Amino acid sequence: MSTGSINVSVENIFPLIKKFLYSDHEIFLRELISNATDATTKLKHLTVIGEAKVDYGNPIIEVKIDKEAKTLSIKDQGLGMTGEEVEKYINQVAFSGAEEFLEKYKDSAKDAGIIGHFGLGFYSAFMVAEKVEIFTKSYKEDSKAVRWICDGSPEYTLEETEKSDRGTEIVLHIAEDSLEFLEESKIRELLTKYNKFNQIPIKFGMKTETLPLPEGSAEDAKAETVEVDNIINNPTPAWTKAPSELKAEDYNNFYRELYPMQFEDPLFHIHLNVDYPFNLTGVLFFPKLANNLNIEKDKIQLYQNQVFVTDEVKGIVPDFLMLLRGVIDSPDIPLNVSRSYLQADGAVKKISSYITKKVADKMVSLFNENREDYQQKWNDIKIVIEYGMISEDKFYEKSDKFALYPTTEGQYYLWNELVEKIKPTQTDKDGKTVILYATNADEQHSYIASARDKGYEVLLLDSPIVPHLIQKLESSKENVSFARVDADHINNLIKKDEPVISKLNETDKETLKKNIEESINDQKFTVQLEDLDSTDAPFTLTQPEFIRRMKDMQATGGGGGMFGMGGFPEMYNLVVNSNSDFAGELLKKENAEEKTAMINQALDLAKLSQNLLKGKELTDFIKRSFESLK
Amino acid sequence: MSTGSINVSVENIFPLIKKFLYSDHEIFLRELISNATDATTKLKHLTVIGEAKVDYGNPIIEVKIDKEAKTLSIKDQGLGMTGEEVEKYINQVAFSGAEEFLEKYKDSAKDAGIIGHFGLGFYSAFMVAEKVEIFTKSYKEDSKAVRWICDGSPEYTLEETEKSDRGTEIVLHIAEDSLEFLEESKIRELLTKYNKFNQIPIKFGMKTETLPLPEGSAEDAKAETVEVDNIINNPTPAWTKAPSELKAEDYNNFYRELYPMQFEDPLFHIHLNVDYPFNLTGVLFFPKLANNLNIEKDKIQLYQNQVFVTDEVKGIVPDFLMLLRGVIDSPDIPLNVSRSYLQADGAVKKISSYITKKVADKMVSLFNENREDYQQKWNDIKIVIEYGMISEDKFYEKSDKFALYPTTEGQYYLWNELVEKIKPTQTDKDGKTVILYATNADEQHSYIASARDKGYEVLLLDSPIVPHLIQKLESSKENVSFARVDADHINNLIKKDEPVISKLNETDKETLKKNIEESINDQKFTVQLEDLDSTDAPFTLTQPEFIRRMKDMQATGGGGGMFGMGGFPEMYNLVVNSNSDFAGELLKKENAEEKTAMINQALDLAKLSQNLLKGKELTDFIKRSFESLK
Repeated sequence: MSTGSINVSVENIFPLIKKFLYSDHEIFLRELISNATDATTKLKHLTVIGEAKVDYGNPIIEVKIDKEAKTLSIKDQGLGMTGEEVEKYINQVAFSGAEEFLEKYKDSAKDAGIIGHFGLGFYSAFMVAEKVEIFTKSYKEDSKAVRWICDGSPEYTLEETEKSDRGTEIVLHIAEDSLEFLEESKIRELLTKYNKFNQIPIKFGMKTETLPLPEGSAEDAKAETVEVDNIINNPTPAWTKAPSELKAEDYNNFYRELYPMQFEDPLFHIHLNVDYPFNLTGVLFFPKLANNLNIEKDKIQLYQNQVFVTDEVKGIVPDFLMLLRGVIDSPDIPLNVSRSYLQADGAVKKISSYITKKVADKMVSLFNENREDYQQKWNDIKIVIEYGMISEDKFYEKSDKFALYPTTEGQYYLWNELVEKIKPTQTDKDGKTVILYATNADEQHSYIASARDKGYEVLLLDSPIVPHLIQKLESSKENVSFARVDADHINNLIKKDEPVISKLNETDKETLKKNIEESINDQKFTVQLEDLDSTDAPFTLTQPEFIRRMKDMQATGGGGGMFGMGGFPEMYNLVVNSNSDFAGELLKKENAEEKTAMINQALDLAKLSQNLLKGKELTDFIKRSFESLK
Repeated sequence: MSTGSINVSVENIFPLIKKFLYSDHEIFLRELISNATDATTKLKHLTVIGEAKVDYGNPIIEVKIDKEAKTLSIKDQGLGMTGEEVEKYINQVAFSGAEEFLEKYKDSAKDAGIIGHFGLGFYSAFMVAEKVEIFTKSYKEDSKAVRWICDGSPEYTLEETEKSDRGTEIVLHIAEDSLEFLEESKIRELLTKYNKFNQIPIKFGMKTETLPLPEGSAEDAKAETVEVDNIINNPTPAWTKAPSELKAEDYNNFYRELYPMQFEDPLFHIHLNVDYPFNLTGVLFFPKLANNLNIEKDKIQLYQNQVFVTDEVKGIVPDFLMLLRGVIDSPDIPLNVSRSYLQADGAVKKISSYITKKVADKMVSLFNENREDYQQKWNDIKIVIEYGMISEDKFYEKSDKFALYPTTEGQYYLWNELVEKIKPTQTDKDGKTVILYATNADEQHSYIASARDKGYEVLLLDSPIVPHLIQKLESSKENVSFARVDADHINNLIKKDEPVISKLNETDKETLKKNIEESINDQKFTVQLEDLDSTDAPFTLTQPEFIRRMKDMQATGGGGGMFGMGGFPEMYNLVVNSNSDFAGELLKKENAEEKTAMINQALDLAKLSQNLLKGKELTDFIKRSFESLK
């Protein structure tokens, strides 16, 4: 038996880092900027606690391309390194300087928000560079500047050099297969993507600015232009500030900073800020969504200490909130783990439920502060709220305080208000309160009109996920059921104990039914005679609630699929008003051909209100109608 | 100045591997199975070339869970290792055994398809295990079995052990945070995902099988059940075979192996097979797509030597083919690089254009072999073909040989056939051939009927990307233009040099126009008097081609957006047939109220054919019509 220590073979580690470490090569710039930022914030920390006796000043990070020399350089005004520190932090791969630093200055450093994986992050430079130089000078008194150079083999050279200012400059000699990183547009794109809100200002390129003319200048005075530093980032974005410091306008400006292509203001924002049991800051925005479940262009961005990490937030943010936009910044979200692990992670679960709770609370306060305004925005936020109600029980439990139920007449009720309002009129003879709804005010207009004529309220529920929401409401609220206005004749949807008057006797009714069935001869329509008001439409097509709802649920990927409704044919009931004048005339009509024509014309009209008259049938109907116009 | 060698700090490399190496922890199983597969195929290679004098047999890989001991083990019957080899390959992290092996047996090994990154792949075990054991015995004569054990610190123990059979067994002592990998369902899921087509059979779990009764058994004889090895993979999937070995049925079976939830057969397959200038095999399938651009559930899977890598093939497969399904297997696709690099990579570009060419060739041969069958499938494949025509010029150039233009009457033309057929009748007085099309046979029925009445052909082009296709065709084909059937009255869509007969004089026409304009009073409709056949509809609504097309293009994310059509209002022309009897009657009508009623009824009918009569207007129309029925 023998024991020993595993030996990491250095010859092979470089190609491996290059190949495997990050699947995305472009990440190298983010890593180097993070190192530069760390070096700067660390120096600040040391000056604050009195360990470093230097003038911190207003340090920036400078990124430069030299196309001729094929170099890209990143220069900071931070700690810098002595020769010994280079030996220690750079020559020992995977020795995390940040860890050691944190260990030493534990408590005070935590608040300063210092991260960094110095060491390994630095080596990502070799993913794009064939040779890397470091010029560095420590903040420590009497330090000598050193130059380190390495061509990606394990051999390096370290020597003294000339450098007058404090800090570190990394010079990447870009490899032939990575020349894209010498393009200004590419570097600008990366800086904008990852470092738009970096803690330390980043200067990249120059821009010219026109100086304002001195007051009282002559009219033909020429404005002077000067070159000024072009700082590409905003080191203090909205989410790093206290809500009390910000006005509505500041949030809108931040929104536009995040999504420059969005011209519309967000509807409202939610400022997140928690430091126990985890650290999380951020601002979420509700954009105008309407009924589109599939918008995903401008996604929520995840940051760690103001460095962009990803816009794939599935698993961190509850599904229903992925329709929102904004920023979440947290050092506590584990990023390099599998998605399934992420979803099981305790911290992540807490973050997710914190965000959910925060959104629910915000909804309650928005509703209470200005109901009118909240109602106006409802149409654009309802999809998020309704999705949340379906998918998160905790959110559902609170939703009675902010979920609205709008009517086709533009009224908005909370659940309890709705039930209180309709209970007296819309409770059927079995004591069940029937909530009537439409999914399309235009298409279901005639049915809505019939219900309104009875004095009933009709909700307008037009999100694609409404069938699921209704299912949820029916199963959790007591003694209510939902019915779409065209699920049956309105008298049948809310059955009352009222006497029914029949104009026709049973024999006549049977004859009438037989006549109609023979004339239309279509399996799709089931003839159903009803004694209705004589002024109600002679023919109406209805579609039973249950089947239609299952089909709708299936369409949005719901549980209906398991019933195999896919191939289920469209079925309608043809409700014939046996008390209508038309029914009487039909019975009297002796000419069989004319009778069939009358029935089919009436059926066509019934089809029109269900948007079922199409193609040749519609063309023929229009032709006939034009002829009868003359 | 000093020089030195970079030192990889071992203490830190393990946590780093665990944290950074693979963002998805589950990958460890794929890596270990790959190692086992390599060890087995290497042994086979050595026996074939006579270097190993052992009985290769029918080796399998065995995966076992021991829930009580909290271990997961992977056992192969491959090369095995001697104590020295363990020292060399395992204790030296990142020493790729496969590389050395390939170097030694260069040419012969290449054909044997040996991959593997032994060394680093092995260490991924520490992503889920707190302790790893290796039991191994080399194929070499007189080798002694050894056991290696390491708890994730750099210290290991190596000792002789008892093991009678050749090969390697890796035993993972699963860590507390990874207990999910002790679930049979989880391991089965991973094996199915990554190793469904592994080159060496993998045994996982047992299953019972009922033995067939011997012939002539008594009727009450009991069938015997035995436990048999449960091999979870198919080591020789269709794409590894020659097309000549396979029947249509084999491809369909393979399709179902790939997508067990797909019950429909694919429409056809394309077998890919190239070894110069890159290696690529695979089978692509055309599923039934209809008009859905967004299906993406069962995506093309990318393999490397029969090991699943990803189903994110964007950049490798041309966009338009991402609607297909199937498998691509190539060792030549660089996987660990950024997407933008991938798209610029020469090899990948070649692969992409090879696949495009292969698909075009397949289309040509399918069309030529059985046009009838091809036509029947057109509706389900057109979206891919049309998308390809728009996005890939090389594909577009060949498309005249296989792109079909179907008519509303169910005829299918190639481009040249179509032009030849319609040129005599559908060329207007300026010599331009006008191709009429509909996008919805039902909704545009009356317009289609009018065009058919004139003896014109009407194409049915109903994919969402058709506006872009039309734009492309108009700009590349000579002297043709497209017009949707409802873009104007048919007489205006294809203008002929024919004498026009006017029943009304100019004064009457002016009066008529004024009457109509006053009655309808809606900015949306522009009244346009035309001398048409007296039997043509009195009122027709049309929508000019250009605006409608721009709007359609915008809806599918096209170039129309730049013209800012978003807020452009819906505009229609109301074509009034001044030769119709209705027009005559209208002029004669003296009662102003009745005149307005007539005009509005006619407008309602015209709206009906454009699906524009909705809501209250439709309800009122139906009510009026019911009343007039009595």
